Amino acid sequence: MSPGLPARAGRDDSTERQAVNQLDRNARGVYLITVTPFTDSGALDLASTDRMVDFCLDAGVTGLTVLGIMGEATKLTIEESRVFVRQVLARVNGRVPVVVGASAPGFAAMKELTDSVMDLGASGVMVAPPSTVRTDDQIVSYFQMVGETLGASVPWVLQDHPVSTGVQMSTSVVLRILKNSPTCVMLKHEDWPGLAKLSAIRAASEKGELQRVSILTGNGGGLFLPEELTRGADGAMTGFAWPEMMVDVLAAHARGERERAHDLFDAYLPLAKYEQQAGVGLAVRKFLLKERGVIASDFVRKPGPKLSAQDVDDIRFLVKRQEKRLREIG
Amino acid sequence: MSPGLPARAGRDDSTERQAVNQLDRNARGVYLITVTPFTDSGALDLASTDRMVDFCLDAGVTGLTVLGIMGEATKLTIEESRVFVRQVLARVNGRVPVVVGASAPGFAAMKELTDSVMDLGASGVMVAPPSTVRTDDQIVSYFQMVGETLGASVPWVLQDHPVSTGVQMSTSVVLRILKNSPTCVMLKHEDWPGLAKLSAIRAASEKGELQRVSILTGNGGGLFLPEELTRGADGAMTGFAWPEMMVDVLAAHARGERERAHDLFDAYLPLAKYEQQAGVGLAVRKFLLKERGVIASDFVRKPGPKLSAQDVDDIRFLVKRQEKRLREIG
Amino acid sequence: MSPGLPARAGRDDSTERQAVNQLDRNARGVYLITVTPFTDSGALDLASTDRMVDFCLDAGVTGLTVLGIMGEATKLTIEESRVFVRQVLARVNGRVPVVVGASAPGFAAMKELTDSVMDLGASGVMVAPPSTVRTDDQIVSYFQMVGETLGASVPWVLQDHPVSTGVQMSTSVVLRILKNSPTCVMLKHEDWPGLAKLSAIRAASEKGELQRVSILTGNGGGLFLPEELTRGADGAMTGFAWPEMMVDVLAAHARGERERAHDLFDAYLPLAKYEQQAGVGLAVRKFLLKERGVIASDFVRKPGPKLSAQDVDDIRFLVKRQEKRLREIG
Amino acid sequence: MSPGLPARAGRDDSTERQAVNQLDRNARGVYLITVTPFTDSGALDLASTDRMVDFCLDAGVTGLTVLGIMGEATKLTIEESRVFVRQVLARVNGRVPVVVGASAPGFAAMKELTDSVMDLGASGVMVAPPSTVRTDDQIVSYFQMVGETLGASVPWVLQDHPVSTGVQMSTSVVLRILKNSPTCVMLKHEDWPGLAKLSAIRAASEKGELQRVSILTGNGGGLFLPEELTRGADGAMTGFAWPEMMVDVLAAHARGERERAHDLFDAYLPLAKYEQQAGVGLAVRKFLLKERGVIASDFVRKPGPKLSAQDVDDIRFLVKRQEKRLREIG
Repeated sequence: MSPGLPARAGRDDSTERQAVNQLDRNARGVYLITVTPFTDSGALDLASTDRMVDFCLDAGVTGLTVLGIMGEATKLTIEESRVFVRQVLARVNGRVPVVVGASAPGFAAMKELTDSVMDLGASGVMVAPPSTVRTDDQIVSYFQMVGETLGASVPWVLQDHPVSTGVQMSTSVVLRILKNSPTCVMLKHEDWPGLAKLSAIRAASEKGELQRVSILTGNGGGLFLPEELTRGADGAMTGFAWPEMMVDVLAAHARGERERAHDLFDAYLPLAKYEQQAGVGLAVRKFLLKERGVIASDFVRKPGPKLSAQDVDDIRFLVKRQEKRLREIG
Repeated sequence: MSPGLPARAGRDDSTERQAVNQLDRNARGVYLITVTPFTDSGALDLASTDRMVDFCLDAGVTGLTVLGIMGEATKLTIEESRVFVRQVLARVNGRVPVVVGASAPGFAAMKELTDSVMDLGASGVMVAPPSTVRTDDQIVSYFQMVGETLGASVPWVLQDHPVSTGVQMSTSVVLRILKNSPTCVMLKHEDWPGLAKLSAIRAASEKGELQRVSILTGNGGGLFLPEELTRGADGAMTGFAWPEMMVDVLAAHARGERERAHDLFDAYLPLAKYEQQAGVGLAVRKFLLKERGVIASDFVRKPGPKLSAQDVDDIRFLVKRQEKRLREIG
Repeated sequence: MSPGLPARAGRDDSTERQAVNQLDRNARGVYLITVTPFTDSGALDLASTDRMVDFCLDAGVTGLTVLGIMGEATKLTIEESRVFVRQVLARVNGRVPVVVGASAPGFAAMKELTDSVMDLGASGVMVAPPSTVRTDDQIVSYFQMVGETLGASVPWVLQDHPVSTGVQMSTSVVLRILKNSPTCVMLKHEDWPGLAKLSAIRAASEKGELQRVSILTGNGGGLFLPEELTRGADGAMTGFAWPEMMVDVLAAHARGERERAHDLFDAYLPLAKYEQQAGVGLAVRKFLLKERGVIASDFVRKPGPKLSAQDVDDIRFLVKRQEKRLREIG
Repeated sequence: MSPGLPARAGRDDSTERQAVNQLDRNARGVYLITVTPFTDSGALDLASTDRMVDFCLDAGVTGLTVLGIMGEATKLTIEESRVFVRQVLARVNGRVPVVVGASAPGFAAMKELTDSVMDLGASGVMVAPPSTVRTDDQIVSYFQMVGETLGASVPWVLQDHPVSTGVQMSTSVVLRILKNSPTCVMLKHEDWPGLAKLSAIRAASEKGELQRVSILTGNGGGLFLPEELTRGADGAMTGFAWPEMMVDVLAAHARGERERAHDLFDAYLPLAKYEQQAGVGLAVRKFLLKERGVIASDFVRKPGPKLSAQDVDDIRFLVKRQEKRLREIG
């Protein structure tokens, strides 16, 4: 268990399992943001959910994040959210931590979902600010209330993703939130551009200005992964139809092979770029996961994008080029 | 029952009561947007809820709207929402229609809440667009999906409130939505400034370009009520600690007494203006409702405003002036 | 001359006149924001400009602000701006300070206009932030650059008007800017709601946390003037077709006649409210100034609003009511 | 000269040269968006300007666009803008068309700059919408006024760049503007994601629903160039420190060598991605242009980004990898 995080009331029975899975300040590696698989008629697809979990773990991810923006969280009922999280947790069975997106328009709903998924065995939750907070003080105050709402035993991830939230958090605001929040153990760094911010937060943590915090990145939709590792990121928390790419890039970086890390990354970059297009990107990702045999349907609940024949042609062309390039670099 | 709206499946038992309360295209008068009363410790206060319902009905309102923005809807759990709506409906007991705010970040949650409150006996729901829709086509498409989500038997209110949503709907967009949506029977007109828009929509409806739609207003926080009535509004849907003002202004207008309508309105205007301040306004309203003996506590759930001693001094000063002015005009 | 503001190079010849007109930290009263009069064909109308200056000075204003948002500043060429400012300054002839709006998309243009109008004899400039700055640090840094751009001898007004700029400055940001900027001598306070902010800034200035700053208000389009005076505002900087109202309200407040200040204010409130409608408001103001014989034409350059027959009917009705009410209160 | 565009009054003397350079509906190739070179002390650097023009023409561009967002247009005085445009035009000397960014907060300034640069010999101007227009009707009406302001003899480019303007133009709005505007001969397509939009606009033009329009792209900062060419784009209008890349990609595409086009593009993609970071990107571009010997200084006027040592390390590393990869693909 992470130091400073007291045991969560009522979960003593699972201390052993939780000790392994508790989200903490030293988390590293690849936390894959998963999609939520549906059947062709739009119902939750639990069989595909199981396959997706296996696929991610086989690829070597060190954690999973569910019910994020790309997990169509707002399109589920509370009950569907619970069913899906329960299925993921059962399949993961304690092998890696599972983080659940808990952003909500109000604290009552945030508390309700958090308590529910923590009781099911989640390792922590992730919270992004609502689009209504603007000034530094409003943002800091909001996350003060988030910490109070979640309570002393729930580790949480601060999501900094201006492209989707419209909320711009300066470096000094992120540092204020981290200092204020003993239970905020991880920063999901997705500001763009964000390399300077990442460097500054890492430096502050290393200089002892604040407790160490895990920094996982998704800057520009994950398009800056090798650069971010060089700046001190602990890994990635983002989605991509080839999670093995991120695992391999991290491994190369850990071995000190900077060129190799870039070679691998660059081989996937054209398709990563295509998959990261705002709006249509989720349809691309589900299409690719279906093509790879991971999920049975690429159904996206409305409102959601659809691929055109031209999109599919682009994607298939890029996949072939990616395969060729991967063979070239070995 | 409104023509064109088939009976809602599974509610045949209450046809008699619903026939009276069904929200329809000819609705007029004052639909008061209520607060959600809490105790001093922040729990739902059902006794105050009953008193508030009585207070509104005694003041002569012709409808109630609950779980709007000023009803702190996002701060309630789903279960609290249901308990509160059930209490209101029980107390109203079919005497006036009750509209429930059902705006939600996703359609699944919107559907879940709507079905729940319609089963409890609500007369319709109100939906505002999410801040993420921008272009005309996006807005029209969103409300197309709203109509499909709610289903053929749920009458709904289109809420046009750019100040809170950030979504600007042009007159032509509102007309497109109204034409597209057989079950959208009412426009809550709160664009500001909005007199020209109100005139244009009313004119289109009178020229037969679209089915008649009820237009209730809250333009500028209700600060333009007499002007809006002159433009053809059917009444008001907004909140104010003196609902009798709106009832009296409408009555004067209906009698053709334009000067009297303005005299009444102007007597309340300084305090209405004070109560309509964004952010702090809800605290002002709850304070006044408590002072008037309607609710037991002026507790606002966080995040929420608090009144300063200076605010309270301002309010008490304005209340005395309002009482004096009302005596003057008789 | 304000302490701490060195004489502006090259303007020694006008020291006498400037000593009277220099904008300083003790400024109070009514700084009327003027319109820019055009002829019916859209050209600058210098004869109306002269009449407008006389009208304002006759009404008792203590300063003028030109080329603000309501002065259609962005619709003028640089040369037209200079011609208009020169005309105003010539007519004012040193009797009151004249502030010129100098907000610009870039610092080069801001500097160019500022130098030009200061050389013509302006008393200072007013700057609002561009809509692109968001975080506290961005805002503070922007105004740091504003101060450097304007130079040590140009007194300036910080305009805090989120409704038009989209920039939300918290109280702490305003205080940081004021502390950073020895030449920022006045705050144009237009945040809404803003009474708490006004109280906090006034208190900080009185506690000696920062140098005294003049605070003129336009909160909610001037709709909270009496409340703002009670909170310590030094006066108003806003536009209204009856500047004498603001002068009289300030005088009543200065005599300690709070009820009288409100009586006067309330008499004008229905029309003030109508004139303050975003967008259409400028057309209302120019219409009223034309009706009062101040300007020859109510032409508004495009893009700009036009009044409908119904708007004109509303306005004439409200003017008559205002006249009647003024007679009643004496 | 483009059919339908009458000769511009007063420029008959240069008809010959203009006949070559007039911007028209069939424009294709690479219109490079240039930076504005400054000296280390921030003054215009006209010698570097000449070198930059030569560098672009040597690289094979078919047009130049100056005073765009990346040209720091808002940071120049009117007079500096004129001096810079005059220098560029003199050096180009009629060899390719030169488009000048003319977006402005008001029409008077837009007209003033346009007339000035057209008189100097520019081929057309480019206009983006102001951030204040929101609804479809507001956007269409704005560009109606743009066309009227520019007059019948000035060809113009519609810039669709939501990331910088905040204005989202749906496909139907772009089509309405193009149909309304006989002098709008080119679309600078930078919406992101925008492939579907590009396909739709191209299809409408090919089906004869509107006059042919040139479509140059900069989607995602130019990161989708090969995909856009496949969708029917006529070329690119964006900036990049290696304009020869875009020229070569277009040439490969024109020869039907889709794989070759992608090979070339992918070799540059890691650095293009780095250079396209919002905010810091301009500093990256100027740094690279300086490294390549094109401009003497990488000075960026404030407010502007600065590179850190880590940024420079990243860039140099990526440049070496780019050179290696280019050798590999031959």
